[in-house]
Amino acid sequence: MPDEVLNDISHRRYNPLTGSWLLVSPHRTKRPWQGAQETPSKNTLPSYDPKCYLCPGNKRAQGDSNPPYKNTFAFVNDYSAVKEIQQDYHPETNKDDVASLLLQARPVTGRCYVLTFSAKHDTTLADMTPEEIVPVINTWTRIYASHLSSSHPLQDQAAKALSAIPENPDGEVTPPKHQLKNMQIFENKGAAMGCSNPHPHCQIWTTSTLPEEPGKELVNMGKYKSDTGRHLLGDYVKLELEKKERLVWENDSFVVVCPWWALWPFEVLIISKRHVRALVDLDDKERLEFAQAVQEVARRYDNLFETNFPYSSGIHQAPLDCTEEEAETSWFHMHFYPPLLRSATVKKFLVGYELMAEPQRDITPEQAASKLRECGGELYRKSLQ
Amino acid sequence: MPDEVLNDISHRRYNPLTGSWLLVSPHRTKRPWQGAQETPSKNTLPSYDPKCYLCPGNKRAQGDSNPPYKNTFAFVNDYSAVKEIQQDYHPETNKDDVASLLLQARPVTGRCYVLTFSAKHDTTLADMTPEEIVPVINTWTRIYASHLSSSHPLQDQAAKALSAIPENPDGEVTPPKHQLKNMQIFENKGAAMGCSNPHPHCQIWTTSTLPEEPGKELVNMGKYKSDTGRHLLGDYVKLELEKKERLVWENDSFVVVCPWWALWPFEVLIISKRHVRALVDLDDKERLEFAQAVQEVARRYDNLFETNFPYSSGIHQAPLDCTEEEAETSWFHMHFYPPLLRSATVKKFLVGYELMAEPQRDITPEQAASKLRECGGELYRKSLQ
Ligand SMILES: O=P(O)(O)O[C@H]1O[C@H](CO)[C@@H](O)[C@H](O)[C@H]1O
Ligand SMILES: O=P(O)(O)O[C@H]1O[C@H](CO)[C@@H](O)[C@H](O)[C@H]1O
Repeated sequence: MPDEVLNDISHRRYNPLTGSWLLVSPHRTKRPWQGAQETPSKNTLPSYDPKCYLCPGNKRAQGDSNPPYKNTFAFVNDYSAVKEIQQDYHPETNKDDVASLLLQARPVTGRCYVLTFSAKHDTTLADMTPEEIVPVINTWTRIYASHLSSSHPLQDQAAKALSAIPENPDGEVTPPKHQLKNMQIFENKGAAMGCSNPHPHCQIWTTSTLPEEPGKELVNMGKYKSDTGRHLLGDYVKLELEKKERLVWENDSFVVVCPWWALWPFEVLIISKRHVRALVDLDDKERLEFAQAVQEVARRYDNLFETNFPYSSGIHQAPLDCTEEEAETSWFHMHFYPPLLRSATVKKFLVGYELMAEPQRDITPEQAASKLRECGGELYRKSLQ
Repeated sequence: MPDEVLNDISHRRYNPLTGSWLLVSPHRTKRPWQGAQETPSKNTLPSYDPKCYLCPGNKRAQGDSNPPYKNTFAFVNDYSAVKEIQQDYHPETNKDDVASLLLQARPVTGRCYVLTFSAKHDTTLADMTPEEIVPVINTWTRIYASHLSSSHPLQDQAAKALSAIPENPDGEVTPPKHQLKNMQIFENKGAAMGCSNPHPHCQIWTTSTLPEEPGKELVNMGKYKSDTGRHLLGDYVKLELEKKERLVWENDSFVVVCPWWALWPFEVLIISKRHVRALVDLDDKERLEFAQAVQEVARRYDNLFETNFPYSSGIHQAPLDCTEEEAETSWFHMHFYPPLLRSATVKKFLVGYELMAEPQRDITPEQAASKLRECGGELYRKSLQ
């Protein structure tokens, strides 16, 4: 059985979604797991913070006041990374002009939103119940649906979702007039991931261009589909359900795995079991089951080192503006990239070799999955409160 | 003049070395530069630390003792990321076997070295003079030369370099018996870059495979060469010397630029002006001028925020084992990726959007270059001592 060998030898694994390799050094974890048992971290935040720019009723940097919202609340980021309206820029690329080859730039427009998960300042997805997370999924779905191009192949599904999901005025946004290409929903959680406000929230960046990562995934999933006639992630889910080595958790609609090609120590992937192209494809039951999957990941992460576990997460799905074929190629999934390696304080740094040469990890995805499987059960800090 | 527009609009820039795009948001820096003036950081380390595993004469984790070395000292990493000898693993890839497509792994062998820059525990490349850095460049060159394959197109240059550079017994290593493919020289400096020991040192990882980054660069430089008949970095150096907007510093042999496609706030690239394929191509004068360039970067970095500036740096050059064509395509350069954005404590986090969608930066490379141009002169902490 060749897989056993991989627990002991340095090797590369292939990420079929991005088409790139990473270095795995399992023997480095043979060093004694010094697993410094830290004191479990409690939650010492107030449930309302008058200084937080996300708490209900508070004033934001640019003077706007937050409504007295109940769960989700969406607004345009006061410091968006992309502008909505700006000067045009249309450089020409010309084989004989070196500058036009080596100094290439293209305009990007768009709009960035911030979205709270809860009115409570001191909660996290790990503390919330799946039922409390459903409004977040609902808001994501309604915002995604409202930004689809008018000729989008998923317009029917969008209409269905919009009529099935109750409107939440505080979570509604009016899409910009110009059709955008892509919507990236992501969460940065914890100071280690550059998040300065613990109030539970995510960001939604919409752009006129298809960014690198979802672009690469679409290309690679497309190649797999035309080579095999099947879906890459569909095949992958089946394989992981058979092998079980990297499976962390499943329900009827979703699997949670540490993917074969995981780079971050406890990286996981939530993948839909059936062919879901985007949020609007999910029905009521599936939205609840997606909330369950998100909750399982967040709670297991916190239980692993008995700490408020930092991570960046993000959803990949069909672009806002795409062809029938691109929509068919898309397969709904959510990545979680957490930096912690051995304890609440020992991080894996992706630095010199990783940046200059190739991503490198120590603990194998199989070892990570086995630890996360053991971390189910009640959130550790419930018993501390 | 279109370039002015780019100071104000959100846009993507193309990295021709990796073939990928990044998002630039210059307007985000229109926020007042709160440039919290920090107290300049002094150096409070001892020049010899009895507990440091890199100081001369001290014992290392696995029991070996360091010699009483003078400047550089090289040894095999006690916890190498790749093994030298290990079980074989030769899986077959088969179009009809899903597991062989989606769970791909390949063995990697190799050897990792640690190399000190100085016997002094409390110095850095910024504190050292170019003349003191020359022994580091010499050791890099000798180690690279001694690891080249016997049929390597640069064998003549290697022989010349080995006879020109005085031997330093503490900086010599015997290459492994099996020919390796690639050598990555890199430095992680500062706790922010995962470095736990301030004793000035770098790492050298040699592997049986060509890693992702140098692999991508070779492909893209090769394409440019066959399309234009010229060298990508040769053309680029000329362009930057003409434009001067991103030029930080130059001497006869090297330029220091904030590249057009820089991702990290104060990212710089040292590029040779003439076609240097690898360290062994450099002559005495060029090795000194390379040391000067490295010193300029390190000192300007420290002066910028009056702090011991963290970064990861790494050299890209011809692989250890390569064809004539690959060697000809290679163009010697050194990357510096520093995380600081606005002060000694304000970092740029490459997290949620960057990981899930596309790398994003705020300050433009032109703004960064202009700040670094102003940071020449004596190392700020000289006057504090
Ligand atoms: O080898 P070190 O210094 O222990 O480790 C450091 O550099 C390595 C190479 O970039 C990384 O893999 C580690 O995450 C980092 O902490
Ligand atoms: O938008 P925020 O939360 O201020 O900023 C955070 O997330 C962004 C998107 O991943 C990053 O570009 C920033 O570096 C990070 O600090």
